Amino acid sequence: MRVTVSVAIAGASGYAGGELARLALDHPGLTLGALTAHSNAGEPVAAQQPHLAAHPAIAGRVFAPTTPEALAGHDVVFLALPHGASGEVAAALQAVDPDVLVIDVGADHRLVDPDDWRHYYGSEHAGTWTYGMPELLHAGESSASAQRAALAATRRVAVPGCNVTAVTLALQPGVAAGLVDPGDVVAVLAVGYSGAGKTAKTHLLASEAAGAAVPYGVGGGHRHNPEIVQNLRVAGAGRDGLADVRLSFTPVLVPMSRGILATVTAPIRPGVTEADLRAAWGAAYDDEAFVHVLPAGAQPTSASTLGANTAIMAVEVDERAGRVVVTCAIDNLVKGTAGAAVQSLNLALGLPETAGLPVTGVAP
Amino acid sequence: MRVTVSVAIAGASGYAGGELARLALDHPGLTLGALTAHSNAGEPVAAQQPHLAAHPAIAGRVFAPTTPEALAGHDVVFLALPHGASGEVAAALQAVDPDVLVIDVGADHRLVDPDDWRHYYGSEHAGTWTYGMPELLHAGESSASAQRAALAATRRVAVPGCNVTAVTLALQPGVAAGLVDPGDVVAVLAVGYSGAGKTAKTHLLASEAAGAAVPYGVGGGHRHNPEIVQNLRVAGAGRDGLADVRLSFTPVLVPMSRGILATVTAPIRPGVTEADLRAAWGAAYDDEAFVHVLPAGAQPTSASTLGANTAIMAVEVDERAGRVVVTCAIDNLVKGTAGAAVQSLNLALGLPETAGLPVTGVAP
Amino acid sequence: MRVTVSVAIAGASGYAGGELARLALDHPGLTLGALTAHSNAGEPVAAQQPHLAAHPAIAGRVFAPTTPEALAGHDVVFLALPHGASGEVAAALQAVDPDVLVIDVGADHRLVDPDDWRHYYGSEHAGTWTYGMPELLHAGESSASAQRAALAATRRVAVPGCNVTAVTLALQPGVAAGLVDPGDVVAVLAVGYSGAGKTAKTHLLASEAAGAAVPYGVGGGHRHNPEIVQNLRVAGAGRDGLADVRLSFTPVLVPMSRGILATVTAPIRPGVTEADLRAAWGAAYDDEAFVHVLPAGAQPTSASTLGANTAIMAVEVDERAGRVVVTCAIDNLVKGTAGAAVQSLNLALGLPETAGLPVTGVAP
Amino acid sequence: MRVTVSVAIAGASGYAGGELARLALDHPGLTLGALTAHSNAGEPVAAQQPHLAAHPAIAGRVFAPTTPEALAGHDVVFLALPHGASGEVAAALQAVDPDVLVIDVGADHRLVDPDDWRHYYGSEHAGTWTYGMPELLHAGESSASAQRAALAATRRVAVPGCNVTAVTLALQPGVAAGLVDPGDVVAVLAVGYSGAGKTAKTHLLASEAAGAAVPYGVGGGHRHNPEIVQNLRVAGAGRDGLADVRLSFTPVLVPMSRGILATVTAPIRPGVTEADLRAAWGAAYDDEAFVHVLPAGAQPTSASTLGANTAIMAVEVDERAGRVVVTCAIDNLVKGTAGAAVQSLNLALGLPETAGLPVTGVAP
Repeated sequence: MRVTVSVAIAGASGYAGGELARLALDHPGLTLGALTAHSNAGEPVAAQQPHLAAHPAIAGRVFAPTTPEALAGHDVVFLALPHGASGEVAAALQAVDPDVLVIDVGADHRLVDPDDWRHYYGSEHAGTWTYGMPELLHAGESSASAQRAALAATRRVAVPGCNVTAVTLALQPGVAAGLVDPGDVVAVLAVGYSGAGKTAKTHLLASEAAGAAVPYGVGGGHRHNPEIVQNLRVAGAGRDGLADVRLSFTPVLVPMSRGILATVTAPIRPGVTEADLRAAWGAAYDDEAFVHVLPAGAQPTSASTLGANTAIMAVEVDERAGRVVVTCAIDNLVKGTAGAAVQSLNLALGLPETAGLPVTGVAP
Repeated sequence: MRVTVSVAIAGASGYAGGELARLALDHPGLTLGALTAHSNAGEPVAAQQPHLAAHPAIAGRVFAPTTPEALAGHDVVFLALPHGASGEVAAALQAVDPDVLVIDVGADHRLVDPDDWRHYYGSEHAGTWTYGMPELLHAGESSASAQRAALAATRRVAVPGCNVTAVTLALQPGVAAGLVDPGDVVAVLAVGYSGAGKTAKTHLLASEAAGAAVPYGVGGGHRHNPEIVQNLRVAGAGRDGLADVRLSFTPVLVPMSRGILATVTAPIRPGVTEADLRAAWGAAYDDEAFVHVLPAGAQPTSASTLGANTAIMAVEVDERAGRVVVTCAIDNLVKGTAGAAVQSLNLALGLPETAGLPVTGVAP
Repeated sequence: MRVTVSVAIAGASGYAGGELARLALDHPGLTLGALTAHSNAGEPVAAQQPHLAAHPAIAGRVFAPTTPEALAGHDVVFLALPHGASGEVAAALQAVDPDVLVIDVGADHRLVDPDDWRHYYGSEHAGTWTYGMPELLHAGESSASAQRAALAATRRVAVPGCNVTAVTLALQPGVAAGLVDPGDVVAVLAVGYSGAGKTAKTHLLASEAAGAAVPYGVGGGHRHNPEIVQNLRVAGAGRDGLADVRLSFTPVLVPMSRGILATVTAPIRPGVTEADLRAAWGAAYDDEAFVHVLPAGAQPTSASTLGANTAIMAVEVDERAGRVVVTCAIDNLVKGTAGAAVQSLNLALGLPETAGLPVTGVAP
Repeated sequence: MRVTVSVAIAGASGYAGGELARLALDHPGLTLGALTAHSNAGEPVAAQQPHLAAHPAIAGRVFAPTTPEALAGHDVVFLALPHGASGEVAAALQAVDPDVLVIDVGADHRLVDPDDWRHYYGSEHAGTWTYGMPELLHAGESSASAQRAALAATRRVAVPGCNVTAVTLALQPGVAAGLVDPGDVVAVLAVGYSGAGKTAKTHLLASEAAGAAVPYGVGGGHRHNPEIVQNLRVAGAGRDGLADVRLSFTPVLVPMSRGILATVTAPIRPGVTEADLRAAWGAAYDDEAFVHVLPAGAQPTSASTLGANTAIMAVEVDERAGRVVVTCAIDNLVKGTAGAAVQSLNLALGLPETAGLPVTGVAP
């Protein structure tokens, strides 16, 4: 690959920003440009991202302040900012450089319905960008192409939330194929702490986390709910005889830094067999580079996806309960954040979709 | 307390046996008698249970072989044996000492239906003993007394499984009060590794567990299923207009030694309000010494129960999903095993129910 | 025990304060009085110490502000405050209630030499209180009695630092017996995160801690250094032909909440045999309730001490290196903080020294 | 890179073998040939190495038996076998294919002195191969070139032990420069569990490891001792006025899968300043791609090296103790095993030394 694409990262001192930098450094077609930060502006990059410190491209670097001037002049700008902050930066970039590819790994531009945004975030909606999940199934698709086409034609990408990615990938083949009932989905996720970000809070301390499993956002108010509903509606929920989505969603923090293991169950529609289900998941993912469906009897471990842009899942049928049980493992910072961003970048720029993205995890 | 009750532990070299010994050593009314083991017979107890080594009652002790002779002559015998092994030992004890109180923390005597046993364990059923969950609600009860009465009158106790305890305690108030529909229960549990026992297996190695969440027994075949169904039927499922129990149950191993955090959801029946639900859980547990229901908005952490005989739970309503979501934390080796055994012992012997049982967890 | 001693805890919302409360609740001779806090004053105790929430004595309690009025009128006041804050509170208590037993688990009153305090803490020294380590060997002692006598006669106790406790207990028998050379001690400690306290800091986040070992305070500036030196001088370093103490001390944070595993090495003096060393450690600790020396070949695990007031150690000789290597495990919040405080209380009030203090750890 | 080098891995079902496969799959110049195993022969590779399962080159593969026939015909053979097993396989390969490059990540061919081998392993020595540490300093070198030259000219490489790598890299610049006294080195290492291998043993279970720090091999008998001594002698210990090596070495297992954090201290020779020390470490490593020395005041975390072939270290002076304290982090399976093997391969085959080797770690 001889292309040289320059990328800037806004919010490069946080966990998502650090992961974008790690992937960009290892990507054969990308050159790392500005790394900006807010409160860490002026500090050495190596102090905040010590796992990057040994790389020659990081030596001597300091964070620039997050300003339009610092971000302008690159081919791609990644936004890894707190929610609510992307809109303003994006508008400023639009003014100075309308052709730049902007990829937002934050929440601001994911939701289609402004009312959902207002309800869950309490502010005005910044608008909807092309959804950065290449594998998203549209109604009637058995494997994903419509979303790839949309990504190939856009300059504005909204990368999905990490928990949303795990649940959507886990269940969408059954919904798109009309095999499961989206009207009573239950998802419980074991999640690592890095998804909660780098801001120091007491309940995120190692002392609290060690040896503990702790649910949060229980009871329906979680901000990831409307995004999952939105995705499963794209897959076909709510039309062609399928119920609209009803979802019970509970994340549980467990003592690890990275990783999500989602357990997603939904009722199987009458007459549907295990073979039907396996065929649907196979059709959806057998040709996907970054989604791996395990053979019957095997179960994923989140450790297998560490550092990789890979989702690994298992599909099992519980006949007594009348439910399909899909377990899905991803690395929240890769397939759940920065890897999806780079995969979207590859598509938007016409690079090979898999360029620079590890498939194998760092395990054990 | 001046009573002195002698206790023997069969299988004292394993995790359950070690926890029974720990609780017995700290119990003001118990004296530790024989500690038996199978492959570790003849070894110092301190070598297998190093956390007990500093206790004067352990100094110099070795494990006896697990024989009726070693176990006979005590007031109480705890059985902490692999499933299938309790029946024979119990029969031998019955022959030599029919009045001894035998408390089995293994699976052999939990199930009422021999067909369930055969289906899930593939051997002949050893019989059903009094179920060692004092807080078990019987149909029509708003708080538990029938099970306590049964325990006060028995010499044979089958202690519940640890995952079963968490799910049963979490959901039974809603079933007993007729407020939730037991016909579509979904339970996903984050569980520590000690529940899998002390036998060396590759998938239980620290290298595999660190930084990983791993489901197991997915899809309905888990041996804990029939026991949960049995308990919720005692609470009223399947009669008085309630559906029979249908359960999707998935345990997920997470990197901790002890602890269970169960997320249990079930549909709310029409017309039932959040206040109704809170009232039912309050009635069931407000007077229980070992079950604590958190105020609205708070969530349990499994760490709060470490080393304690306490279950801590939160009840939330997801109106969009039409489900109650109950999260319940226990220490699998205490409330889930050895603590339930001692609590049952206290009832069977007429001691104060709370004697020797810690209420506060070791945290952080 | 019919004694009823009322205790107040200043700083009860932190980790040390929470552990003092846990031990006090389980102590047969103590009644829990005021629980005070600074920024958490007015909040429910259960919100900050959820592992205590199920205890009836905690129900409905809120933190009082940390004032002399709130603390006055108790038999014992525990101070669990940031360093520098104890002095003022102690002076106020002295004014209103000179006979109260005050036990400071913070650093303010540990050091004998005011210059050490100024050098390491940069403020004026608040004075020196009786050192709360009953097992401290004085020069010429083969087992500890002088320190116990001092504690029995005092109303002011300074509880040792947790890392200091592990290193001191590990090495003092060899120094007191003149068998090892205190002039070149090297101590490296694997320590859990709870020793760093409950204040939210980025480097203490679970995301940073999971899967990581991180040294801190490397190179001699650590505040625990002068306290270890002070203790080994009490044991005899610097007189009777022994060198004065020279110490290299490095703590390494490892991903656990509680626990210290100290590896302490020192040169063996010429002519000293392994048998001499084992005899000295045996003489020092064989009669101690809370210090357990393992047989040759066994090694301690910090897990064995979880929740217990027990130090477990192993003494090995490296003949090629000419060094004794002592490994010592404690729970930093119990033997390293709150347990030592309660043990000192027992001595100061004439209660049995072991009252209310667990010997067995919660493991695995 | 257009070179295509075929590699076989003997012992590919274990942790070291899996890591060799992961690195080989991501190496632009290597093609993965036979993967052999002993008891897992015939099983799917994906079942034992699930983190590699999503890679197209792994799909459908099964382990071949570890035989000379399976291994013959490749350009490179990696041996990842239990100690004692490499010799025989190597001899068989030598017979059929004397020019193949054989790289042994096991212990068999590391030691120069057969007596050392017999003393520590109790069997006959298989011979000494070229030591696979390119950064090894020879006496008189300020930066490493002699070892690289040796590796460029060999067909037989013995990869260093992981703990040995951390300690050697940490201390050798001071020894080679004559600045520190190798006669009283103390090294204590916090190490993850993957270094202990994949064989199921009770003390390696997650239940034992969680929340625990556990020393092993204490007191001088550890098999890594003679290898460290050997390396520091290459750097100059024992001649030019330097003392011979005396080493106290203690590894402590801590609850993580990968990673080593070594704390290595040695006396500073008279008249040596901190500037002298920093200059020596800088000269040794400033041009090394895989060794990064932190600025004064910063400390490494093992997490920064996860998945990377990078050693990160800090050099601090403790003036009171008269010792230099070097802390050094590596990933035991990469820089400590498989990464060193690939780096050696690159040198032996004339490829760029850094080809296929990640510099940045996967963190947090």
